[in-house]
Amino acid sequence: MSDTWGNRIKLSIFGESHGPAIGITIDGLPPGLAINMSQVEQEMARRAPGKSPFATARQEADTVEILSGMHEGKTTGTAICGIIRNKDARSKDYGTIPRPGHADLTAAMRYQGHADMRGGGHFSGRLTAPLVFAGALAKQALSSLGISIYGRIKQIGTISDPITDPAPELWTALTGQEFPALNAASGKAMQELILNCRNQLDSVGGVVETAAFGVPGGLGDPFFASVESVAAAIFFSIPAVKGIEFGDGFSLAAMQGSQANDAIGIEDRQLTTKTNRCGGILGGITTGQPVIARLAFKPTPSIAQPQESADPVSLEPATLEIKGRHDPCIVPRAVPVAEAALALAILDCLPEGTLFDHRKEK
Amino acid sequence: MSDTWGNRIKLSIFGESHGPAIGITIDGLPPGLAINMSQVEQEMARRAPGKSPFATARQEADTVEILSGMHEGKTTGTAICGIIRNKDARSKDYGTIPRPGHADLTAAMRYQGHADMRGGGHFSGRLTAPLVFAGALAKQALSSLGISIYGRIKQIGTISDPITDPAPELWTALTGQEFPALNAASGKAMQELILNCRNQLDSVGGVVETAAFGVPGGLGDPFFASVESVAAAIFFSIPAVKGIEFGDGFSLAAMQGSQANDAIGIEDRQLTTKTNRCGGILGGITTGQPVIARLAFKPTPSIAQPQESADPVSLEPATLEIKGRHDPCIVPRAVPVAEAALALAILDCLPEGTLFDHRKEK
Amino acid sequence: MSDTWGNRIKLSIFGESHGPAIGITIDGLPPGLAINMSQVEQEMARRAPGKSPFATARQEADTVEILSGMHEGKTTGTAICGIIRNKDARSKDYGTIPRPGHADLTAAMRYQGHADMRGGGHFSGRLTAPLVFAGALAKQALSSLGISIYGRIKQIGTISDPITDPAPELWTALTGQEFPALNAASGKAMQELILNCRNQLDSVGGVVETAAFGVPGGLGDPFFASVESVAAAIFFSIPAVKGIEFGDGFSLAAMQGSQANDAIGIEDRQLTTKTNRCGGILGGITTGQPVIARLAFKPTPSIAQPQESADPVSLEPATLEIKGRHDPCIVPRAVPVAEAALALAILDCLPEGTLFDHRKEK
Amino acid sequence: MSDTWGNRIKLSIFGESHGPAIGITIDGLPPGLAINMSQVEQEMARRAPGKSPFATARQEADTVEILSGMHEGKTTGTAICGIIRNKDARSKDYGTIPRPGHADLTAAMRYQGHADMRGGGHFSGRLTAPLVFAGALAKQALSSLGISIYGRIKQIGTISDPITDPAPELWTALTGQEFPALNAASGKAMQELILNCRNQLDSVGGVVETAAFGVPGGLGDPFFASVESVAAAIFFSIPAVKGIEFGDGFSLAAMQGSQANDAIGIEDRQLTTKTNRCGGILGGITTGQPVIARLAFKPTPSIAQPQESADPVSLEPATLEIKGRHDPCIVPRAVPVAEAALALAILDCLPEGTLFDHRKEK
Repeated sequence: MSDTWGNRIKLSIFGESHGPAIGITIDGLPPGLAINMSQVEQEMARRAPGKSPFATARQEADTVEILSGMHEGKTTGTAICGIIRNKDARSKDYGTIPRPGHADLTAAMRYQGHADMRGGGHFSGRLTAPLVFAGALAKQALSSLGISIYGRIKQIGTISDPITDPAPELWTALTGQEFPALNAASGKAMQELILNCRNQLDSVGGVVETAAFGVPGGLGDPFFASVESVAAAIFFSIPAVKGIEFGDGFSLAAMQGSQANDAIGIEDRQLTTKTNRCGGILGGITTGQPVIARLAFKPTPSIAQPQESADPVSLEPATLEIKGRHDPCIVPRAVPVAEAALALAILDCLPEGTLFDHRKEK
Repeated sequence: MSDTWGNRIKLSIFGESHGPAIGITIDGLPPGLAINMSQVEQEMARRAPGKSPFATARQEADTVEILSGMHEGKTTGTAICGIIRNKDARSKDYGTIPRPGHADLTAAMRYQGHADMRGGGHFSGRLTAPLVFAGALAKQALSSLGISIYGRIKQIGTISDPITDPAPELWTALTGQEFPALNAASGKAMQELILNCRNQLDSVGGVVETAAFGVPGGLGDPFFASVESVAAAIFFSIPAVKGIEFGDGFSLAAMQGSQANDAIGIEDRQLTTKTNRCGGILGGITTGQPVIARLAFKPTPSIAQPQESADPVSLEPATLEIKGRHDPCIVPRAVPVAEAALALAILDCLPEGTLFDHRKEK
Repeated sequence: MSDTWGNRIKLSIFGESHGPAIGITIDGLPPGLAINMSQVEQEMARRAPGKSPFATARQEADTVEILSGMHEGKTTGTAICGIIRNKDARSKDYGTIPRPGHADLTAAMRYQGHADMRGGGHFSGRLTAPLVFAGALAKQALSSLGISIYGRIKQIGTISDPITDPAPELWTALTGQEFPALNAASGKAMQELILNCRNQLDSVGGVVETAAFGVPGGLGDPFFASVESVAAAIFFSIPAVKGIEFGDGFSLAAMQGSQANDAIGIEDRQLTTKTNRCGGILGGITTGQPVIARLAFKPTPSIAQPQESADPVSLEPATLEIKGRHDPCIVPRAVPVAEAALALAILDCLPEGTLFDHRKEK
Repeated sequence: MSDTWGNRIKLSIFGESHGPAIGITIDGLPPGLAINMSQVEQEMARRAPGKSPFATARQEADTVEILSGMHEGKTTGTAICGIIRNKDARSKDYGTIPRPGHADLTAAMRYQGHADMRGGGHFSGRLTAPLVFAGALAKQALSSLGISIYGRIKQIGTISDPITDPAPELWTALTGQEFPALNAASGKAMQELILNCRNQLDSVGGVVETAAFGVPGGLGDPFFASVESVAAAIFFSIPAVKGIEFGDGFSLAAMQGSQANDAIGIEDRQLTTKTNRCGGILGGITTGQPVIARLAFKPTPSIAQPQESADPVSLEPATLEIKGRHDPCIVPRAVPVAEAALALAILDCLPEGTLFDHRKEK
C-alpha cells in the first residue's frame, strides 16, 4: 500500500494538490503530550511557499486543522488527523503533455488515467506539508525525551558547505534561519546559484543534512527494522529524493577499515565511539552518538525552458514549456521536511515503554 | 520488529552465526513456480566464503535445506522456509572487547548482554546467505515474467569503474564472473587494492551497482511504498551498507533541471524516457526503463591491526587485535546480496495479479 | 496500533464524538471506480440516528465530505479520506463517574486520563459512521465484480428470527427496510421488545447476520489471513460486538461430523458444497458459496436506570443515572455497520489483480 | 499474506504435514528470558496425538528443535525459529477426491493444484504444534509478569459443563489433566460421547474456554487493535474454529442492559468491575479482570463413514470413505492450542516497555 508507514507509529497520508484538502493521520503518539501549536505553525511556515526569492511565489497558508486526537491542548492517545485546505490553485497551468522528470508519465501507467494530476496531484511537493505537521508533533514528543532534530543545507548544485561534522552549537544556531547554511561564504554562493538558475528558467538540486541529538543507544534492530531501513523508507517517500547516506555514507566506500572504524572509548562511564563516521548507527542500532543522514534532492523538474516530451494521445513528439510558479530549488524548503522524516523515524524506533515512562513521570 | 519485511511478500529472517542454523521464511510466492535448484545453489555459491583470495578463507557449504512450501520441484503457494546449518565455527576467536565498527557495542545496549554474539551472531554477514536464498527464488519468479536482475562492482576504495550506464549486453556478460567488474583495467586495479589491504591487515569498502531489466512501468506507489522506499528498507538491512542511490543519485544534486530531467520520447508506441538518469523510477513508480541502484559498503570492520577499544567490565581502554579469518573486502561477495535485495523489492511491488496471471498461463 | 487495519487495503480511522470531526482514510481502492454518492448517502442514512423510535433521538446529519482520492466522480487510486463534522453535541450530559458496560473505565487506564471521553469519545458508536462510509465504497467496488453484501436482524434479546439460511431473493427483499427482519411475526415482536425496553429505561442486545453473495472461491489463506481472521478482526472492532460465528458457528460444536460436513457436489461443471454449514469458508478460504457471519451485540450499556458505579477521585461508591439520548437497542442501526465490515474484509482478501483486471476491462 | 501475524510480536508459520518439517518463527520476545524447556515439552505433549483413546493413534514425537534466538537457555532478543520434523506419514492414505468439511476443495481453488495436500498439507491440524510451541514461550514470558493462561473443555457435542465463571483455584486444578473438564459427571459423559462417535465411525465438535488471569488493565486499543480483534485473528487461524465469543458472548445478545452491564466497584483502591460478563474487555481494552474467551470447534471432518463427494477430474459424483487414523474429537487436544493463541494475543498487546521493564529488574 502506498500511503501508510510505520511500525510503532502509523502514518496515513492523503490528498491531491488541487483537491479539497491534503492531510495525514498519526497514530501512536502517547496520551497527555502537551502540544505547542505555535511551534507547529513555525514548522509549517518553514516549508510553506511564497516566502523568499529562492522559492515559488505561490501563496499557501498551510494552516493545519486538527480534527481528532487532541483535547485541551494535549494528545489524547488516539489517532490525530490534521488537514490543510487547498486554495490558490491554478489548474489551467497543467496540461496533458507529461513533464520530464515528473511523475506524470508513471502516474498515467499506475493509475491508468484516473489520477487527479492537477498541480501534481498526490505527487505534488505540497504533500510534504502533512509530513511536516506530523514531524512537528514528533519533534515535540522527542523533545520531551531530550532528543533534538536539526537540518541544514549541505550542498546546492556544485557548491558544497565545507563544514563537516558540525558541533551541536552550530546546529542550534541554525534555528529560525531562512537559509540554514553554516558557512557564510558558501551559503551566499548557494543563494546566488539559485537566483541564477531562476533567471535562466532553470532549477538546481542539492543535499540536506539532518541530525538527531540526544538519541539513546540501543534503538532499532538488525535487518529490516534497522534505523537506517526505517528512516530510508520515509526519506525516499519525499518527492525528489534520489539518494540517502548515513554518517560518512558513500565516502566510507572509498576508505580502508583502519580509517573508517570509529574507535571506542569511555564517556560518563559508558562505552561510546570517539568519532561518528558511522552516523550514530552500527548494525542498524543507535550508538548514542548523533544520528546523521544526508538526502540528495534532484533539481525541481518543473522548469520554464522548452523541453522534449510527447503527446500521449497522438503519440507525436511535443515541446513542452511549463508555465506556472515553481521553485528554482526545492532544497531550502526541504530542510524541515527532512527533519520531520528523521523525527518520525526516531519516534518509530522508540519502544512504546519509553514514551509511556515519560508519560507517567509528568 | 526487526526480522520481518514486505507487503505483498513477507520475509522473516532468523539465526545466529554460531547457533544451530540460520534461515528465512518467504511467504507470498505464487504456487506452481518450478524452482531450478542448481540455479539457487549457484547464487549461494556466489556469496559463499572461501572461494577466492579476495575473501575470507572460512569454508562454509551454505547448503540450503528447504523445509516447506515446495513439492515436486514447484512452489506450493505457502510459506517457504529454507535453513542453512552452521559449522566450522571458531567461537574462541571472539572476545568481550567490542570491535570498532561492529555491532558489538550497540547489540550490548539493545539486548543488554543477552545476544549470542559468537561470530557476530545475528549481525554476522553470514545472515546475508538466507537473503541470497530468498533472492534466488525471487529472481526465478521474476525471470518467468521477463525481468532480469544484474549486479556489478562499481567501486573498490578509491578506484571506480569508468563505465556508467552499461548496455544490457554488458550486464549479461557479467554472469558467472567471480569478480564482476566491467572495465578490465580498473577491475585489475581493484583486485590489487584488495590484496594490498589484506597484506596491510586492513580492509576496504566499495560500491555495488545493481539493475533490474524488463520491469514493467507502473509498479510502486507514491510516498511510503515508493519503489525506492521498499528497496531502501531491504538494502539498508544488509550489513555494512551506509548509502543508497537510485539512477544518478547524489550526482543529481549537483545538476540543473535542464541536465537532470530525462526527456520523454516514444518507443513501441508508448511514452518512455529517452535517458534514465532517474534510475527507472519517477514519483516512486517505475518508468519501464531499467531500475538502477547503487549501494555503498563500508570497509569490513574486522581488521587485524591493533585498534582502540574499551573493556565493558573494567571500563578501561583496551587495544584490540582481531584474530580469525575475515574478508579484506566484502564487496565482491555482496554483489549477489544486493541483487537478491533488489529482486525481492521488485517482487514485493508486483501486484498479486501479475503473478496470478502468469500462473494461469502455465 | 489501534486505528489501522488491513493488508491489501488499509483503513485508518480517527475522531472523537465531540471533537471537530470523525473520519477514515481508505487506501487501496483501484483507480477509475465510479462512485455513486447517493448510494453512499443511503448507507450513511441507514446507520444515522434519529430516524426511528427504536433508536436514539439525536439528530446527526452524517454527511461525508470526501477530501481526497476522488476526481470527477471516480476513484483516483490514491487514499480516500472522508470526514464527518460533529454537531448537536451535549457535552454536559457526560460526567466523571464511569458508566458500567462502557469503555470509561478502561479508557482511563489506557490513556491515563487524557482521552477526550465527551460523548464516548473515540469509543462512541458514532465512530461506526466512518466504517459505514468505507464499507459503502467497498460495496460498490465489490458490486462491480458481482459480489453483493446483505444484512438482517437475526435476534433481538430472546426473540430469534426462525428463518435460517435464507434464499438470495429473501436477502434482496430486505434492501431499504428500516427494520430488516425476515419473518414478519418475530420482527414485530422484536420491535415491541425494543419499545418495552425503552419504556423500562433499559436496553437490549441482539444478533446481526450478514452475508456476501457472489464471492469467488479461493479467496483468503490458511492461518493468520483466513477470511475468518480478517473479518473477525474488523467485526470485533465494532463497539458492543462480543461474539462472532461463521456458518453454523457455535451450533457446529454440538454436531457430529456426519451432520456438520457439507457434502460435495457438482454445479456448472465445478465442484462445490451442496449445503453451506461452513458459511462459505473451509480452511480459511472461500468455497464460492455465500460467506455468512453472525455478530452478537451486547445491549447498549447507556441505560437511564440507576446503576452501581464508583467515583474515581474519592474512591467511594456512586449511583449513576445516565441522562442523554441513547439507543434502546443498537442492533437495527448496526446492520449496515456489519455489512460494511464484511464488505471491507472481502475486499481485503481479493488479490490486487482481481480489481486490476476489472479496471482494465472497463 | 497468510502466514504472518502480530504487531508487537511477529509470528511466521510454515510447513506441510508430510513435508520435511513444520515450524514457526517468533520475533519480538524480550532478551534474557530464561526458558524452561521441560515446560515447553509438556505443552507440546498436551497437544501431541497418540496419547489417549479420545485422539488419533498416530504417534508424533513433536520434538521442537530451536534453531535461533536462544543462547545458554535464555532468549537473545532476536527471532526464535523452532522446527518439528515430520515422520510416521502415511501419504497413501490421501487421495484426490476432496474430503467434505476439509480444505481440499478450497486449497485446489486457491493454489490451483500445486498445494502439497498430503496429510492435509499446510491445512493439517498438525500445524497447531508450532503454535503451541510459540504459545509455550509466550506463556513463560507472561508468567514472569504474573499472567497465567488456562483452558478447559466447556462442551463436547450436546454436553456442556454446567460450571460457569469458575474460580481461579478451579482453573489451576486443571493443570496436567488429560481431559480438562471441571464437572466430573459431565466430563465423564463427554468422554463417553467421544468414544461412541469413534465407534460409529463419526466425530464430534465442542467448545474450549480459555482464560488469562493477572492481565493488567489498559491493554489493547479501541477499534482494529482491540484485544478481541487481536485474539480473534489468531483464534480463527486455528483449523476447525467457527465461532469465538468473549465473556458472556452470544448470551449477552439475549440480555437487557440492566442484566448485562458489569457494575463498577472498588478493590485495592482501584475501580474495577464487580462481575465479569464482559470477559475482562471493555471498548477493546482490558479491565484487569480475567480475559475469558470461548472457541467453537466443528467436528473433525475426517470420518470413516461413506460421504458424498465428487471427482475433480471426471466431474462425476463419488463416494468417499476416508481411511487413516483421525481424532474422533479434536477438542481435548485443542485446549493447549487455544491457550497458546490467547497467550500470544495478550503478549502482542503488551507495550514493549512492559517487558523491557521486567527485563531490567531481573
